[in-house]
Amino acid sequence: MRFSHLFTKTKKEAPRDEVAKNAVLLVRGGFIDKVSAGVYTFLPLGVRVLKKIEAIIRFEMNTMGAQEILMPSLHPKENWEKTGRWESMDDLYKVTDTHGREFALGPTHEEIVVPLMREFISSYKDLPVAVYQFQNKFRMELRAKSGLLRGKEFLMKDMYSFHADEENLTAYYEAMKETYKRVFSALGISSRTYLTFASGGTFSKYSHEFQTVTDAGEDTIFLCESCAVAINKEIADEKKCPQCGRTDLREKRSIEVGNIFELKTKFSDPFGLSYKDEKGNLRPILMGCYGLGLSRLLGAVVEVSSDERGIIWPRSIAPFGAHLTALGIEKQNVKEKAEEIYKKLSEANIEVLYDDREASAGVKLQDADLIGIPRVIIISERTLSKGDVVEIKDRESAATEDVPIAEILRRFSSFAI
Amino acid sequence: MRFSHLFTKTKKEAPRDEVAKNAVLLVRGGFIDKVSAGVYTFLPLGVRVLKKIEAIIRFEMNTMGAQEILMPSLHPKENWEKTGRWESMDDLYKVTDTHGREFALGPTHEEIVVPLMREFISSYKDLPVAVYQFQNKFRMELRAKSGLLRGKEFLMKDMYSFHADEENLTAYYEAMKETYKRVFSALGISSRTYLTFASGGTFSKYSHEFQTVTDAGEDTIFLCESCAVAINKEIADEKKCPQCGRTDLREKRSIEVGNIFELKTKFSDPFGLSYKDEKGNLRPILMGCYGLGLSRLLGAVVEVSSDERGIIWPRSIAPFGAHLTALGIEKQNVKEKAEEIYKKLSEANIEVLYDDREASAGVKLQDADLIGIPRVIIISERTLSKGDVVEIKDRESAATEDVPIAEILRRFSSFAI
Repeated sequence: MRFSHLFTKTKKEAPRDEVAKNAVLLVRGGFIDKVSAGVYTFLPLGVRVLKKIEAIIRFEMNTMGAQEILMPSLHPKENWEKTGRWESMDDLYKVTDTHGREFALGPTHEEIVVPLMREFISSYKDLPVAVYQFQNKFRMELRAKSGLLRGKEFLMKDMYSFHADEENLTAYYEAMKETYKRVFSALGISSRTYLTFASGGTFSKYSHEFQTVTDAGEDTIFLCESCAVAINKEIADEKKCPQCGRTDLREKRSIEVGNIFELKTKFSDPFGLSYKDEKGNLRPILMGCYGLGLSRLLGAVVEVSSDERGIIWPRSIAPFGAHLTALGIEKQNVKEKAEEIYKKLSEANIEVLYDDREASAGVKLQDADLIGIPRVIIISERTLSKGDVVEIKDRESAATEDVPIAEILRRFSSFAI
Repeated sequence: MRFSHLFTKTKKEAPRDEVAKNAVLLVRGGFIDKVSAGVYTFLPLGVRVLKKIEAIIRFEMNTMGAQEILMPSLHPKENWEKTGRWESMDDLYKVTDTHGREFALGPTHEEIVVPLMREFISSYKDLPVAVYQFQNKFRMELRAKSGLLRGKEFLMKDMYSFHADEENLTAYYEAMKETYKRVFSALGISSRTYLTFASGGTFSKYSHEFQTVTDAGEDTIFLCESCAVAINKEIADEKKCPQCGRTDLREKRSIEVGNIFELKTKFSDPFGLSYKDEKGNLRPILMGCYGLGLSRLLGAVVEVSSDERGIIWPRSIAPFGAHLTALGIEKQNVKEKAEEIYKKLSEANIEVLYDDREASAGVKLQDADLIGIPRVIIISERTLSKGDVVEIKDRESAATEDVPIAEILRRFSSFAI
């Protein structure tokens, strides 16, 4: 894509109404736009990153045998009354139509997915089964000031699994922990993201969160470095690892980027979700649920992978595979060479952001740093004076390397889509 | 995908609470599930069709040079007060948080996109530009009884274009008419879908709808068969073609599947969206908007492309490229051959729904008809007795043909994804 075609522009100054680093950099880079506190528009660069995060998660959910569905945001009041959450959930947005019919705006989907599955599961032969969706959630956050980390409206992957017995639920739940670790690894945040013991509610001793360590986090965890697990401070009576019992844990600020929960029969019971076993006896279905916030993950990556110059995207979710910039594009030979390389990369299906603007070298290099695509291909009179070479700059280390033009395609071929 | 893995089941009986053909067939086939009047969940088969419709539309919007964004559903009251629509729009859902802050649930996005573009457009050099999104809309439909044709919550592609002058707007608007025709052609409904003159509001004489002729439609149009255009009865003072002036028009029921509108400065004015021209003079920006309802299109396709046995999907948006069914799968030789063909098609990246269930031939063939994938590959003892052949059945005509197994891949290669 040509930079000159992109309607967004980078901003030099931090927006006055944002304090969170993720929001500041994402707004400055042209990834998001603030509509209201906790409510954002995703701009073209942001949509590209979101879609890549979505593709990574979809692949892993499909690998777990889960089936993709899409549930609505308008939830009938009756469903939420059945679970008692119409009254008990404080941050529920409610709407009423002119006929007096009331709906909740879904902050989660147990109240929809359980009656749905009741239509299709009747026998042990129908189990286990898992469904998931990518869907917008609503939560009445009155003090939303953390950018994408805490939104009134946010994009989530939520998945629900259904099992005949506890053993089957537990096996799936454990496999899901590994799946989540693969997702965080693909997103480049695995070295800072810890399985964290959290409140289990009435049905289980613990649920599990995945917490990414960063000072921007709103949660506090006690981290056991020898087990590489943590416990949420909220539920920790003492500083003690729930796995190995050690007490020399480190207190860290962190962001909850995912959570998984053994719901067991908490939601099956109110909706009468049950199945007939091999002997024809009616038994309750056990459930697990598994959340991942896509917009929050995007914000979390920016919090942990950025510097004073801008964002440093992991390759896997960068908006483009390469950033091509032509310094001194007013010169005919520079422009011609840049256009030639842009064409060559595009024809090889490598996604390129091509900075074809007539702007100073300073502005163009600063924008490349801000936007944060991991590899920047620089063409200038200086590089051309060395023969048929370009400079390839690593965004993170700022190290540069002269690479023959004939070799560029090979260097970027793993970025081809 | 194996039919036995799909958690949905087909239903023999029409749901008691649905009257619209699209809802009856889509519920029976396991494409959608009703949550409440006008509120549906898309099930795995339905999600697959939606994604294909989305891909067709995305390709055409990108071809028009438009850039994909994603705007929120929570719209601050202030934005809607600025255009006067907070009060004037009857079907607007409104929510209030516990701090008394009010939001509209977006039924359309002019109130969000105009202030957004105001941040990025300042000069004639920034024009023209167009943005679009795939996003959920909310509209307070008090009598939703047409299945996917009229929802309280529905998926839409909405696009907005911005221009320096009327000539530029008109040229883009005319090009968009052709783009929409290409979309309807790709969806297999072009022969029944007509450009229809509709109310233009205060700023233009006409807007344009695209109306698909079907008795299930809630609109009435006067169709001029010689021009292949129509006029919405609502705005027609007389039965007269607005293009050629003929008066022998035919009255037809139809569904509005898309609409395009020259907004001109209707929304630029209240938000002060303007640009500096070549001479430095401030001038208002002219806008066009272009809607397509994805869930409604899905419903419309079912209304016009179905028979008493079920849905007949156009190839382009069928949930799978092929439906493979094994009759008498209890027999070892039938099962082995079916598994072999399933493996071969899958390895060639052809999307197959493989009915591997132990069920009667009658049930399996009825389900294939109901689900409506255009080509059904039938394997049975009878087909195998003829040598290494399968039967390929055309869903629409029910015509069958014996095809050598060696030739199947070639037959379906155009379905490869």
